[in-house]
Amino acid sequence: MVNLLALSGSLRAASINSMLLRAVARLAPCDISVSIFTGLGELPLFNPDLQEHLPASILTYHRAVARADALLIASPEYAHGVTGPIKNALDWLVGLEPFAGKFVGVLNTSPRAHHADDALRETLRTMAAVIVEPASICVPLLGAGLDESGIVATPALADAVRACLRALEHAVTSRREPLTPKFPIQ
Amino acid sequence: MVNLLALSGSLRAASINSMLLRAVARLAPCDISVSIFTGLGELPLFNPDLQEHLPASILTYHRAVARADALLIASPEYAHGVTGPIKNALDWLVGLEPFAGKFVGVLNTSPRAHHADDALRETLRTMAAVIVEPASICVPLLGAGLDESGIVATPALADAVRACLRALEHAVTSRREPLTPKFPIQ
Repeated sequence: MVNLLALSGSLRAASINSMLLRAVARLAPCDISVSIFTGLGELPLFNPDLQEHLPASILTYHRAVARADALLIASPEYAHGVTGPIKNALDWLVGLEPFAGKFVGVLNTSPRAHHADDALRETLRTMAAVIVEPASICVPLLGAGLDESGIVATPALADAVRACLRALEHAVTSRREPLTPKFPIQ
Repeated sequence: MVNLLALSGSLRAASINSMLLRAVARLAPCDISVSIFTGLGELPLFNPDLQEHLPASILTYHRAVARADALLIASPEYAHGVTGPIKNALDWLVGLEPFAGKFVGVLNTSPRAHHADDALRETLRTMAAVIVEPASICVPLLGAGLDESGIVATPALADAVRACLRALEHAVTSRREPLTPKFPIQ
């Protein structure tokens, strides 16, 4: 079983990115668990002074991240930048030991928005996350008029989402394999 | 009198960026007022759903921004990106009518950090702010070991800060001049 934690960078109830992640959870095959972290809106604004006595909301978040085999992030672009809420969530993971080397898929629901996607990837790489490219896809939902069930029922989208999940699973299970030498050694 | 509002992108009590802004306020000539907005840490995480009934903290913030002739932003770089708190603060100004055309100076205390500075400028331009280049300077404080009084007492820094303030003042007062035709018309 592979455990994925999904983070949406928008707190809007009708967020397209949150909707996509709920559809992803429904489309997950039975050997991949996708849980959506719904507490990003309750995190305090990042303040290094709080790190000595972390609030309960941050401890819960850190535990959820530590337990996950990989993360899946879907976040909109606000004013040609990352959203405040997703950057705040990432700021709280900087230097968190279990985050280093974590596999991450970065979903983009808006094909024409590249600033936030680029910035998110730059930050994640700087934080020593491993971006899984086949799991980092553009799912063009902005303006598509689809709801959660519509995504699930659209074969092209459902296939793309399942391939994304399989790519994350592959990254996780490949790392789990013992480091035995393979013959012939090249 | 020109009224400037200063925003620090770090909530850390010992923040170099907040320290710089306090020094800027002390160095301001008597015809330029610099007030530091200290409520960024109390703003909720940006959520478009809250825009119908804005929390009191946001209304206070919006009023302070609307009253200011120009903004001065000093913000660190976290993991090759803007800080969550400063992007959150800017997210709350997207589409705010009095923000369009607002003059902004962007201070950078870390010469080697360009990702956050670039991203901040891109976002501000997208929000229709007017970045005042002579007021957007690098003040190399990271690792300099200076405190607030040290900045004020260092002639090169004090001169640079005063020139930055004068540049913002010049931008504001130039706009205030009535749009009378100048002769000869070229």
